[in-house]
Amino acid sequence: MPVITLLTDFGTRDGFVGAMKGVVLETAPGTQIIDITHDIPPGDVEFGAWVLSGYWKLFPPATVHIGVVDPGVGGPRKAIALEVDGRYLVVPDNGLATGVLATSESWRCVELTETRFMRSPRSTTFHGRDIFAPVAAHLAAGADFEKFGPLLKKPLRLTLRPPTRGEGKVHGRVAHIDRFGNLITDIPADWVEESWRFEYADRPLGRLKRTYADAGVGDLVVIVGSLGTVEIAVREGSAAKRLGAARGDPIIGKGPSVRA
Amino acid sequence: MPVITLLTDFGTRDGFVGAMKGVVLETAPGTQIIDITHDIPPGDVEFGAWVLSGYWKLFPPATVHIGVVDPGVGGPRKAIALEVDGRYLVVPDNGLATGVLATSESWRCVELTETRFMRSPRSTTFHGRDIFAPVAAHLAAGADFEKFGPLLKKPLRLTLRPPTRGEGKVHGRVAHIDRFGNLITDIPADWVEESWRFEYADRPLGRLKRTYADAGVGDLVVIVGSLGTVEIAVREGSAAKRLGAARGDPIIGKGPSVRA
Amino acid sequence: MPVITLLTDFGTRDGFVGAMKGVVLETAPGTQIIDITHDIPPGDVEFGAWVLSGYWKLFPPATVHIGVVDPGVGGPRKAIALEVDGRYLVVPDNGLATGVLATSESWRCVELTETRFMRSPRSTTFHGRDIFAPVAAHLAAGADFEKFGPLLKKPLRLTLRPPTRGEGKVHGRVAHIDRFGNLITDIPADWVEESWRFEYADRPLGRLKRTYADAGVGDLVVIVGSLGTVEIAVREGSAAKRLGAARGDPIIGKGPSVRA
Repeated sequence: MPVITLLTDFGTRDGFVGAMKGVVLETAPGTQIIDITHDIPPGDVEFGAWVLSGYWKLFPPATVHIGVVDPGVGGPRKAIALEVDGRYLVVPDNGLATGVLATSESWRCVELTETRFMRSPRSTTFHGRDIFAPVAAHLAAGADFEKFGPLLKKPLRLTLRPPTRGEGKVHGRVAHIDRFGNLITDIPADWVEESWRFEYADRPLGRLKRTYADAGVGDLVVIVGSLGTVEIAVREGSAAKRLGAARGDPIIGKGPSVRA
Repeated sequence: MPVITLLTDFGTRDGFVGAMKGVVLETAPGTQIIDITHDIPPGDVEFGAWVLSGYWKLFPPATVHIGVVDPGVGGPRKAIALEVDGRYLVVPDNGLATGVLATSESWRCVELTETRFMRSPRSTTFHGRDIFAPVAAHLAAGADFEKFGPLLKKPLRLTLRPPTRGEGKVHGRVAHIDRFGNLITDIPADWVEESWRFEYADRPLGRLKRTYADAGVGDLVVIVGSLGTVEIAVREGSAAKRLGAARGDPIIGKGPSVRA
Repeated sequence: MPVITLLTDFGTRDGFVGAMKGVVLETAPGTQIIDITHDIPPGDVEFGAWVLSGYWKLFPPATVHIGVVDPGVGGPRKAIALEVDGRYLVVPDNGLATGVLATSESWRCVELTETRFMRSPRSTTFHGRDIFAPVAAHLAAGADFEKFGPLLKKPLRLTLRPPTRGEGKVHGRVAHIDRFGNLITDIPADWVEESWRFEYADRPLGRLKRTYADAGVGDLVVIVGSLGTVEIAVREGSAAKRLGAARGDPIIGKGPSVRA
């Protein structure tokens, strides 16, 4: 039973996602459709790229992941499909695949040019329905990946400043703020130790703890989050509100040999 | 594998939609349940009718579409099922099917009176769970359409003022404002040409463009939307906010031979 | 085709629910995944327990219901699975099963200790992905209930004050406020009669009516709700806003022989 997942910034109330689902089932009956989210902030490609990177590989091989956060729809941006570690991605070529590509060396990319896999006529404003959904359905139904268009060597990637380390210190950033107000950083957990202390904008955050429960209710706590990076939380509260933090803000970690 | 879709104004947080899904699966195991939306503004039948009209026909024949936006639940309004172009609709008889009926001449309608297809006992407040879900499940499982109750000749339709045209001019309305603040009108694209100019409340909106990308970021743009009607957008912004527009507001289009 | 349902307080936008779905499908391919809701207010176990109790039994036997409202994740609270009337629940042991357990005498509970049914390594912050989803998938795939860990005699239950009655009076509470602002009480409908009058904080609410439609638009109305308890509504409006009511507020009902 083929599986297609959906991530969009469409919300659900206008029925646009419903239209995509109809096209999938008309094209590939029996496909299992899995909603990831339709609540990506409108047009926020970086947000979508981060979210995509967290679930795509947990699905079984052959799963087709659709991602539509596409402020440039109808313009010159390409539409692409990727095969990464046996899963597929069908997305606009605007950086939405950045997080997925960062986790794998083994991928192929095609530009979607073969119109026989698309709806006809194609609108200029709703490629989710007219390109991404039918292409994903054809992929799920077993169409040959390289039939969808020419190979593309360099899909667009967002240029995100990577974390750095040296001399007992790490410099990273807030990569994502989740619904609970947790600050999920890009600092790999295996770069730091329990003895390390963290700071946000000169504000000390304390040492790395094992879990939320190691802090008192309402206290700030630095832990290793579920994606294997350093995370800043407030137990039963919002670290984002407490610190007034935004995505991209710097986070610093220091080992015990480094002076405050 | 039968398919049932769900559109409601229930939200999801109270579990009411969950209850409907349980009834569907208890009645017709193996049915594929597809969420369209549960975020229709509470009681807004016209909104729901517009959304339904955008996806119902994209699903394969035999799909059963449930729609529950039902401020009159428990009162005298009827419950109905429709067969339209091979798909089914199960809805309250309050106008929710208006948009679907507008697109087809070929339909049948029955009033839902046969209680053997409903849950027992029936509440007076939750017909989604007690009438619409089980009826849809029986339809999906292959029950004969005309067994559900007597034929109904005139299901209720909302009286929406249709767009008009003549002498190189069209008069239409904002039919829907989507999540992005786009104003989707009821003016068919094939009534107008690229040379036409549009106005909202005496404010000139310019000529018809091909796509969002033909406008600068933040600029108003008039295009043909994904449903084949004229649409007013602000690139990477909200036309609804920019213009202070509401559903039902008039939009005027003028050909090149008409004076400003 | 096994069925797993999902109730969480995760929202969808961060992809956490998507991660859980991936784990389910990787572990038990072909499982039908049903979203109940991801909009439980963060950390509100009592809200989640009420919602769970409304749909779990409407699903067919063998359905596995996952519930994750888990402010104590990573702390000392246990993770459990329950078998209740042939359905399964996979939840933290924090009271989330209270409403389900209240409706049945016939249940078994195990503490989830067998790590072979979990992901490895396990995070301390995301047991939805690492414990609840894979355990549910193994249950759905037919693993023996008692293999997941030792029997637990007393899963934690929230201590909710039950409604009381006597001498032609009932004292109950607002158990839940739904999306429409309806106040759903814990007063069983079969404790009261049509002749009874109700009060909220000394404010008379009138007699029990049959349905919303028995009140004028904008009027307060007391009816029997879809869960078989007394409910206070405003027709096409919000009773919660009208009365300024909150969950837990007392509601009193009086038979005709009781003085005002």
